[in-house]
Amino acid sequence: MASRALILTLRLLTLVFLVISLVVLTTNTSTMQIYFNMEVQIRFRDVYAYRYMLGTMVVGTAYTLIQIAQTLHRMCKANQLISRDGVTLFDFFADQIASYVLATGSAAGFGVTKDLKSVSDAVGLPYDKFFDKGYAAASLLLFAFVCAALLSILSSFGLPKKF
Amino acid sequence: MASRALILTLRLLTLVFLVISLVVLTTNTSTMQIYFNMEVQIRFRDVYAYRYMLGTMVVGTAYTLIQIAQTLHRMCKANQLISRDGVTLFDFFADQIASYVLATGSAAGFGVTKDLKSVSDAVGLPYDKFFDKGYAAASLLLFAFVCAALLSILSSFGLPKKF
Repeated sequence: MASRALILTLRLLTLVFLVISLVVLTTNTSTMQIYFNMEVQIRFRDVYAYRYMLGTMVVGTAYTLIQIAQTLHRMCKANQLISRDGVTLFDFFADQIASYVLATGSAAGFGVTKDLKSVSDAVGLPYDKFFDKGYAAASLLLFAFVCAALLSILSSFGLPKKF
Repeated sequence: MASRALILTLRLLTLVFLVISLVVLTTNTSTMQIYFNMEVQIRFRDVYAYRYMLGTMVVGTAYTLIQIAQTLHRMCKANQLISRDGVTLFDFFADQIASYVLATGSAAGFGVTKDLKSVSDAVGLPYDKFFDKGYAAASLLLFAFVCAALLSILSSFGLPKKF
């Protein structure tokens, strides 16, 4: 059975991946020089799927922070790392939904990056670095999803026997 | 507790949504007339994310067919609809993975359709109908995902007590 320490570690890992992917995504800007002093800029918010990614990252980060706070609170009260007191129905559903949200964010990011990059290459736009950073953000979100999926599976096994 | 009849109904619904979305996606073609007898055609396989969608649909359909066959086989042996004999660990993990696969397929489809449509509109290409069909396929895949997610939750609750 999963101990609180394992669950806490996975939640912290999720948080780390989410925060790094948030930074990578939101700082993603690329500039194209047209004439001497004319520039065209592409930012992450110009791509709708990246905005959705941002949404999933924000929701995931907020949820993970709440869960970490709750786990720490329980640990302080019980003053031990190993014992656990079952998974509530709310935790089970929330973990399941959180993992789906992160999965869809990452998938939307990969899908749009691959296709927009090929369109951009075909037209000859110099946005390769922009889309590479898009891949990086989607990959980090994928790692966060893997942690969330493991947490969701642990929640399923931790469901109280009465259900 | 979920009866076999409920699980079978959800599996059949998943299959129906998957088959319709497969037909909608693979028959999606749009033609643009350039000159008198010159045409440019866009097909679903020109969009990488649509190919990934197709992959998730094929995997989802194959898995759902296997599960339906297994359920029917069990029902014939036991000759009753209501009883159930627990969920194996394999079913639990397979249902979980299947629901993630369908979620990512749908998300990639929605993401790429939204952004490619806005690029296509900006350039003035007449591919609205093509992308509307892309939305339709992604929506049907979303419905299939919802059924798969419900099945995954039922599997979690049906896990044997020993775990």
